[in-house]
Amino acid sequence: MRALRARRPHRLPAMAAAAATSLGSGSGSGVLGSGGPRPPVLSGATMNPAVRRVEYAVRGPIVTRALQLEQELRQGVPKPFTEVIKANIGDAHAMGQKPITFLRQVAALCVFPELLQEAAFPEDAKARARRLLAACGGHSAGAYSASPGIEAIRQDVAQFLERRDGVPACPQNIFLATGASDAIVSILKLLVCGEGSGRCGVLVPVPQYPLYSAALAELGAVQLGYLLAEERAWALDVAELRRVLGEGRRRCQPRALCVINPGNPTGQVQSREDIEAVIKFAYEERLFLLADEVYQDNVYAEGAAFHSFKKVLAQLGPPYADTVELASFHSISKGFAGECGFRGGYVEVVNMDPEVQQQLAKLVSVRLCPPVAGQIILDAVVNPPQPGEPSYEGFMAEKRAVLSALAQKAKLTQEIFNRTPGIRCNPVQGAMYAFPRIELPPRALQAAQAQGQAPDMFFCMRLLEETGICVVPGSGFGQKEGTFHFRMTILPPADKLQVLLQKLSAFYTKFVKEFS
Amino acid sequence: MRALRARRPHRLPAMAAAAATSLGSGSGSGVLGSGGPRPPVLSGATMNPAVRRVEYAVRGPIVTRALQLEQELRQGVPKPFTEVIKANIGDAHAMGQKPITFLRQVAALCVFPELLQEAAFPEDAKARARRLLAACGGHSAGAYSASPGIEAIRQDVAQFLERRDGVPACPQNIFLATGASDAIVSILKLLVCGEGSGRCGVLVPVPQYPLYSAALAELGAVQLGYLLAEERAWALDVAELRRVLGEGRRRCQPRALCVINPGNPTGQVQSREDIEAVIKFAYEERLFLLADEVYQDNVYAEGAAFHSFKKVLAQLGPPYADTVELASFHSISKGFAGECGFRGGYVEVVNMDPEVQQQLAKLVSVRLCPPVAGQIILDAVVNPPQPGEPSYEGFMAEKRAVLSALAQKAKLTQEIFNRTPGIRCNPVQGAMYAFPRIELPPRALQAAQAQGQAPDMFFCMRLLEETGICVVPGSGFGQKEGTFHFRMTILPPADKLQVLLQKLSAFYTKFVKEFS
Repeated sequence: MRALRARRPHRLPAMAAAAATSLGSGSGSGVLGSGGPRPPVLSGATMNPAVRRVEYAVRGPIVTRALQLEQELRQGVPKPFTEVIKANIGDAHAMGQKPITFLRQVAALCVFPELLQEAAFPEDAKARARRLLAACGGHSAGAYSASPGIEAIRQDVAQFLERRDGVPACPQNIFLATGASDAIVSILKLLVCGEGSGRCGVLVPVPQYPLYSAALAELGAVQLGYLLAEERAWALDVAELRRVLGEGRRRCQPRALCVINPGNPTGQVQSREDIEAVIKFAYEERLFLLADEVYQDNVYAEGAAFHSFKKVLAQLGPPYADTVELASFHSISKGFAGECGFRGGYVEVVNMDPEVQQQLAKLVSVRLCPPVAGQIILDAVVNPPQPGEPSYEGFMAEKRAVLSALAQKAKLTQEIFNRTPGIRCNPVQGAMYAFPRIELPPRALQAAQAQGQAPDMFFCMRLLEETGICVVPGSGFGQKEGTFHFRMTILPPADKLQVLLQKLSAFYTKFVKEFS
Repeated sequence: MRALRARRPHRLPAMAAAAATSLGSGSGSGVLGSGGPRPPVLSGATMNPAVRRVEYAVRGPIVTRALQLEQELRQGVPKPFTEVIKANIGDAHAMGQKPITFLRQVAALCVFPELLQEAAFPEDAKARARRLLAACGGHSAGAYSASPGIEAIRQDVAQFLERRDGVPACPQNIFLATGASDAIVSILKLLVCGEGSGRCGVLVPVPQYPLYSAALAELGAVQLGYLLAEERAWALDVAELRRVLGEGRRRCQPRALCVINPGNPTGQVQSREDIEAVIKFAYEERLFLLADEVYQDNVYAEGAAFHSFKKVLAQLGPPYADTVELASFHSISKGFAGECGFRGGYVEVVNMDPEVQQQLAKLVSVRLCPPVAGQIILDAVVNPPQPGEPSYEGFMAEKRAVLSALAQKAKLTQEIFNRTPGIRCNPVQGAMYAFPRIELPPRALQAAQAQGQAPDMFFCMRLLEETGICVVPGSGFGQKEGTFHFRMTILPPADKLQVLLQKLSAFYTKFVKEFS
């Protein structure tokens, strides 16, 4: 810290030059002289320490290095590879997945309504665009929407949920958001409070998607990590929840439990029985449930099926159905749409105290509204073409193609990994990632330590430098002590993915040999 | 609080009904019986008190009531008006302003690139769309962008700033965001820390745009309000800054100073001299400067001109130019574009400590990226058609029409208000609002008190109920004690605005008579 405090901020030479040729009208009139350098008001030492504690591995140092390598390649620096493959993030379109035509037609019609006159656009897309524009202020996607989202879209989400679950859903319980991340942070903000041993504790899986750890660090809450059972395909274990909760109660006030299903980074799809057990546990222990269900359309394994927490909760009946407080999250970034860049998503709240719900409405109003273009794409996702409508066949074909390609790639990934001695990969039942376990030889651990790196970071950095493949070390998600993993998306096109997996396996084998 | 604690949460009857007809597989297996009602985990009494403290008047109770009234009108409930006019928020398109064609053409081309084949779209829009798509992952607006925004757009913003200020700008200092609000909150998050008398204090104007008070409440910082001088057209007064800072130092650690120019809600445009004085004050007192410059294109008054803090800072020369830390904010929601729904904006940081800047980059990465469609509109705003390009004439004509209509409406608004005895309105030099002062008779104050309302809230609610005009009470922005104001946008179409102003003035006169 002292070193940071002493370091002088880097002044932009351009700015200094501009200043030197400036009018200089006031340069002598300051009360203080322009003596020696002085520390900035805001420095590493004086800034908000909660922000310093935030870590987000998915876009962390390994990605920074990947971007540098890309630039070096463009500048002609010789490398042992010709392309950097960013398998670090679930970004389908960046990996070549084509947008679903219908979604973009609806969005383009709303963005540029003159296109409503174009015969080339199908009538069902036009009908949806007309309805959405009528729900926009001044019939423009450029007007603010209501803060919880456009009412017509909240209605469509409610109907989508009713079809999905066979359980009533109410538009007033649905809050659209700037992606699921935004919605998750809003709910955590409501929950998190307290100081010292009264601080709010939140149970989060290990491994987890690091949005949770980042948000909890920023909010000053206590993250209580419960281990998923790697030996049982990353299943959730209520005994482990109980252990972590008991331990947590000694140092904070545990108030909430986060579950990610299908799992990120694990690819696990939870059984109905496990979900029931989690709900009962939340009821008994008085925990608010956060169900991150953004991968609900990404289920590949035979015999696996997505069960929403809300459906299971309703079917459990009283006292659970009318008591357990639940927030369930969904997104347009995943599923078959993969429209990450539009930043659309929502939360449905169930059994939320009406006063808290009012506070949630107020909280989201400060940021005015979620991006309307993202809301529009969300509407097209939850209200897709129906049989008989002109876009139906094409839409279904595109959707099936995306999902079946993902299913094939999930299988391919686990197969190639499991063929490699030293790598063990659980079945990728759902979501978009593999999270294989890698054995690392003791000399690799020593080499990593010598560089002040986590062993899996050391491995992933070497992998990146030698092959151009960018994956995220398991330490960025959390893992059982002494085990090492990495997260890799299954999104690259199948032919590319196959080459990538083979390269990765070969590199691993070479790496192990080098450090044995 | 006790009343809230006792109140039973409202259970969705639909949900309960679903539960009653549920499979009931687990309804008997809970450890706890389904005895009497129990309080929710998350209630008004147990939720994060910082969120409870947040207030955001622009979308507060008066707007909730306006929405109810709209619904009642639709249901045929008789009212003394036929339409609710929401003059509470700077939402240009909702008030009938048409989108600028070029911006939407570029956006539509990026959303649906098949349109690049359409002869109907001009070549300059296509050229920009092609360049932006090439800068998107997988050439899709549906891919995540880099967290601080698409590099090509950061470059265009930097060039825009260089043209504006005649001072070098660096893309690495520009962070695109989900609207200016998002960027402002990110900067405040870096600054805010400390407990008790070590809490961070932030100087904020009174009246202010309530995003600041809301964000500071949520972050647990101390808001130090400095009064703008209403008698000098809401000018900023450095002596007042000094007074508030001195007072603030006794109870917190003041670290930052927010300035809104052109002013929201005041409509004031700061003079170059005042900006110089503020910069010197920030230098002397070691304050980080936040310059909210989202209305920089909205300057109407003769003799008034927008001077950016960055330009004035550079021109002041050392020691200011190379020392004072500044964050300047801009947005696509205001200016001539008015594209609020797309949620686009940015912050440029100047003289920021490089380590802090790295922390800022990390912080924004947790939320992945700003909406790409908003980034695209931003690019079209900062990189508009140039002379000789096919869209140039049309674009300039549309832009001029928007800005000159606003200038006329600014004039009309202050004129009609100032004709009404008891209302005094400073010149609307810029931005999109009038913030007139209203004298309220003592009996009106008593009537308000009897209803537990601020006097100006009482006035605005009565105005809404009787005329359908929705404006925001001055108490939502802050005002000198004993004075009363409201904020009204000047955005309605001129003919409608004239009627609205006359109705409002007539209502005020009647109101004063009623309570005299």
